[in-house]
Amino acid sequence: MTSETFRLTLACRNRPGIVAAFSDYLFRQGCNIRESRQYDDASGDGRFYARVVFDGVDRPIDPDGIAAGFAPVAESFGMEWAIRPERRPRRVMILASKFDHCLVDLLYRRRIGELQMDVTAIVANHGPETYAGIDFDGAPFHHLPVTRETKAAQEEKLLALIEATGTELVVLARYMQVLSDDLTRRLAQRCINIHHSFLPGFKGAKPYHQAFERGVKLIGATAHYVTADLDEGPIIEQDVERISHADDPESLIRKGRDIERRVLARAVRYHIEDRVFVNGAKTVVFAD
Amino acid sequence: MTSETFRLTLACRNRPGIVAAFSDYLFRQGCNIRESRQYDDASGDGRFYARVVFDGVDRPIDPDGIAAGFAPVAESFGMEWAIRPERRPRRVMILASKFDHCLVDLLYRRRIGELQMDVTAIVANHGPETYAGIDFDGAPFHHLPVTRETKAAQEEKLLALIEATGTELVVLARYMQVLSDDLTRRLAQRCINIHHSFLPGFKGAKPYHQAFERGVKLIGATAHYVTADLDEGPIIEQDVERISHADDPESLIRKGRDIERRVLARAVRYHIEDRVFVNGAKTVVFAD
Amino acid sequence: MTSETFRLTLACRNRPGIVAAFSDYLFRQGCNIRESRQYDDASGDGRFYARVVFDGVDRPIDPDGIAAGFAPVAESFGMEWAIRPERRPRRVMILASKFDHCLVDLLYRRRIGELQMDVTAIVANHGPETYAGIDFDGAPFHHLPVTRETKAAQEEKLLALIEATGTELVVLARYMQVLSDDLTRRLAQRCINIHHSFLPGFKGAKPYHQAFERGVKLIGATAHYVTADLDEGPIIEQDVERISHADDPESLIRKGRDIERRVLARAVRYHIEDRVFVNGAKTVVFAD
Amino acid sequence: MTSETFRLTLACRNRPGIVAAFSDYLFRQGCNIRESRQYDDASGDGRFYARVVFDGVDRPIDPDGIAAGFAPVAESFGMEWAIRPERRPRRVMILASKFDHCLVDLLYRRRIGELQMDVTAIVANHGPETYAGIDFDGAPFHHLPVTRETKAAQEEKLLALIEATGTELVVLARYMQVLSDDLTRRLAQRCINIHHSFLPGFKGAKPYHQAFERGVKLIGATAHYVTADLDEGPIIEQDVERISHADDPESLIRKGRDIERRVLARAVRYHIEDRVFVNGAKTVVFAD
Repeated sequence: MTSETFRLTLACRNRPGIVAAFSDYLFRQGCNIRESRQYDDASGDGRFYARVVFDGVDRPIDPDGIAAGFAPVAESFGMEWAIRPERRPRRVMILASKFDHCLVDLLYRRRIGELQMDVTAIVANHGPETYAGIDFDGAPFHHLPVTRETKAAQEEKLLALIEATGTELVVLARYMQVLSDDLTRRLAQRCINIHHSFLPGFKGAKPYHQAFERGVKLIGATAHYVTADLDEGPIIEQDVERISHADDPESLIRKGRDIERRVLARAVRYHIEDRVFVNGAKTVVFAD
Repeated sequence: MTSETFRLTLACRNRPGIVAAFSDYLFRQGCNIRESRQYDDASGDGRFYARVVFDGVDRPIDPDGIAAGFAPVAESFGMEWAIRPERRPRRVMILASKFDHCLVDLLYRRRIGELQMDVTAIVANHGPETYAGIDFDGAPFHHLPVTRETKAAQEEKLLALIEATGTELVVLARYMQVLSDDLTRRLAQRCINIHHSFLPGFKGAKPYHQAFERGVKLIGATAHYVTADLDEGPIIEQDVERISHADDPESLIRKGRDIERRVLARAVRYHIEDRVFVNGAKTVVFAD
Repeated sequence: MTSETFRLTLACRNRPGIVAAFSDYLFRQGCNIRESRQYDDASGDGRFYARVVFDGVDRPIDPDGIAAGFAPVAESFGMEWAIRPERRPRRVMILASKFDHCLVDLLYRRRIGELQMDVTAIVANHGPETYAGIDFDGAPFHHLPVTRETKAAQEEKLLALIEATGTELVVLARYMQVLSDDLTRRLAQRCINIHHSFLPGFKGAKPYHQAFERGVKLIGATAHYVTADLDEGPIIEQDVERISHADDPESLIRKGRDIERRVLARAVRYHIEDRVFVNGAKTVVFAD
Repeated sequence: MTSETFRLTLACRNRPGIVAAFSDYLFRQGCNIRESRQYDDASGDGRFYARVVFDGVDRPIDPDGIAAGFAPVAESFGMEWAIRPERRPRRVMILASKFDHCLVDLLYRRRIGELQMDVTAIVANHGPETYAGIDFDGAPFHHLPVTRETKAAQEEKLLALIEATGTELVVLARYMQVLSDDLTRRLAQRCINIHHSFLPGFKGAKPYHQAFERGVKLIGATAHYVTADLDEGPIIEQDVERISHADDPESLIRKGRDIERRVLARAVRYHIEDRVFVNGAKTVVFAD
């Protein structure tokens, strides 16, 4: 019999004895630590972060019992913490607009088991005809068009849908609408966006055309948690590709698609696998 | 007997017949095209750029004769152009401040023949004791300290030195002084700077500390021609490295040094080998 | 009225006058060279390669007339050459086995117009149930199972299908069958394969497990033309990703999928856009 | 008063309670864990590796007392372990041959404090005139020429020098001599080599020329511990750069130099900072 595997994630102000406390506790519960990643942010306040994968040594684990017993330990250190079964899919809603490369990629990775998620809904401000030929694999599609006048009402519908579906993570898969400050606050640390990134950066429309005009030699993409400060939330993942003067805006956009989809997919996977911790304006990512 | 090798570089408004004109001309002069790189910037005005490496088929070349004969061809197309012997070292002045990693790297690459340059002078706003243990290999060192009050006078000395030494290229090898607008204009397209680059970008002091605070996952460097618009001239080369939350400002600075020195060395080599053309706000680089 | 765009590709032994000859010819035909990439392989015999994109300056082009006129020019230089309209899709057959990440990726890129191809057939040694949920977008699917005994007969069917469908390029999209020497010869320079690549290399089964055992720090993939020498034909494209001791075989396979699909897609695009020339055991690739 | 910082490294067969044991012990000794990296190799026997950086909370640490007290803990788990002060430089001997790019780079990084090492000796099979202009910064130079006949005697001298100088790490900085099996055994896990790496790999002389002939699109380098199996010891670090058909053997060698020196420098730094553990045929590297 194989024991089920769990993930303990925790964050607290660092002080001596944290690792001893949780590892000692798990040891006494008959648990075996399979993987352990830790990080002590010695700067600032000195926050400590850990992700511990564990199972039972010779018998199944009672996660509720373990959690109940861990609560006083966690409290004594002021921990934010969670214990989650490794195999439970996260409930994820995907928002999309006209461009579908990120949407299609996420669905494909889910289908082959790379992303451990249930898609609660696919929401778009474009109609279903935009996504003809894409197999949603049973995920419900919602067309929520938006104009300046209807934005508040549309976001209310969106939020109601998020709540009704038990959505744990919202992914903006090239969703070209700016969320209101209020909505971003409600989705704090559970809404991931992807956007292009350049050296140097640009503001405004048609970024790949701007990058072409500016003659950059690298283009990239950034996946981050959404905050009220547009495109400036805690960064989860970034990547770049080399370009040259021979690239025109069309080829930049083509290369950008490849970077965007792989950066977003990595960020979503890191989140789903409890590898990301928000640490003020930045993140701790126990990547693999 | 091996015929000497030359490089023809040219830029002009694109129109039919340019390639035919220069390749036909070289053919009739008994020259053999060894390498030919061309680029037609179809955007904007449609500028055409070419770099042609050629030698004589069965006899030495008379470069002056070839240049004289090419002048009317070039004029008919409105070309900016030059013919240079491949083996002639470019005359390069290196400016440095406290950090010497770029300076040392450039000198090393010159020593092993990777950079085809004569170092006309090493100029620093720090004294020679800062560079103890560095073998300048015969290059004269000039200490030109600078304060806000003496800046104009210091730049005059610098310019006089540039002219007196026949310097063709000025390299700011982590030279931490901002050149005046006037000086940058005089050094247009013959002064290369290196600076850190991040996604997103930062302004102000201690950039690696800012990058750490912001939690970026990539750090990079940009080499560019200096213009009056600080850190914004035409980009010649860029590169990045992946970092993580485990990097502290010290390790970012360490990784930054590696990126800076290799990006600057590439940019200098591209310039010296006539591989870079300024095309408005950007460059065409026939890299290898 | 916009004139149609064409691509002239040519290869021949290098000697003075080639560029002059073709550019002069196109000029006299009233054509405008939009892009021109050339390469002179100075090693060995000295082969010259060119890819020229051109259109008519002020009138439509008659490609047949231009080709007819170019034939004697080409013959005088012993050129292998072709003139193709840029907009004509290439006819491509995709072969697949159990893993569908490359197949799905190629189909997606075709759907959004990134790959200019018509899929003549999807052929697999697994049955259609393996690919449930994949939208073939009208491309016919053929199940051609193969055993050691039926291999010769299966390859005959395959070849008949290639011919009947006017297939110009065969893509082995993780097709896990070794083609016979005879078939590889018939498909010379028009059959592309993708396989994993490691530093150092490995032979035999379960390569990602071997890479894990060996503790490599980088994994990669290679796309190449298929020759009788398995996995050793002329390389078109390669890429790698960094891994660490924290990666297990499962995560290597996951990262490998991402590398494989993007390397294969680039190689197919380069071929389709006439950017690849076979030069003995290697290739010349005018990448963008 | 700042307490001195120490590094505890340990490896043992994994079983429940290891982390609890060492973290609890350090806690009770009044130590603060500043950084902790751990890895459980769940494959094979299940080896556990940890690197713990710690200092005293409010008083200086007595490392000998701490080590003495830890010995029984370590013994109970069958640990291989060490406690080292972070600030003590490692004693490193550098072996070189004709090419000096790795040698010069290591010396530079030592000079600016990037590599925490004392150079016990620079040993070369070429005479000192080969390294004219390199500042050894006080490190003694030994010319130990070698022929097939004198190899055994030369290695004896080398070994005597290693012992006499208290050398802890031997770096083959492009040292072009194959060490005998006997010597590699004596230097097990304390001798690092750098060599070029390609996809696919090559055997024999002039590897960059072979890579050119084979038309690879990436070239790389591998740093590894030396074992009797030439170029096949546990890999510490690898990196690559993209090349193209436009690269000739000369430019491959140039790019190779850049990769070799940075890969070797990283591997040496990882070793010196106790970040590398040998795990059978591979390594665990707690990189930063």
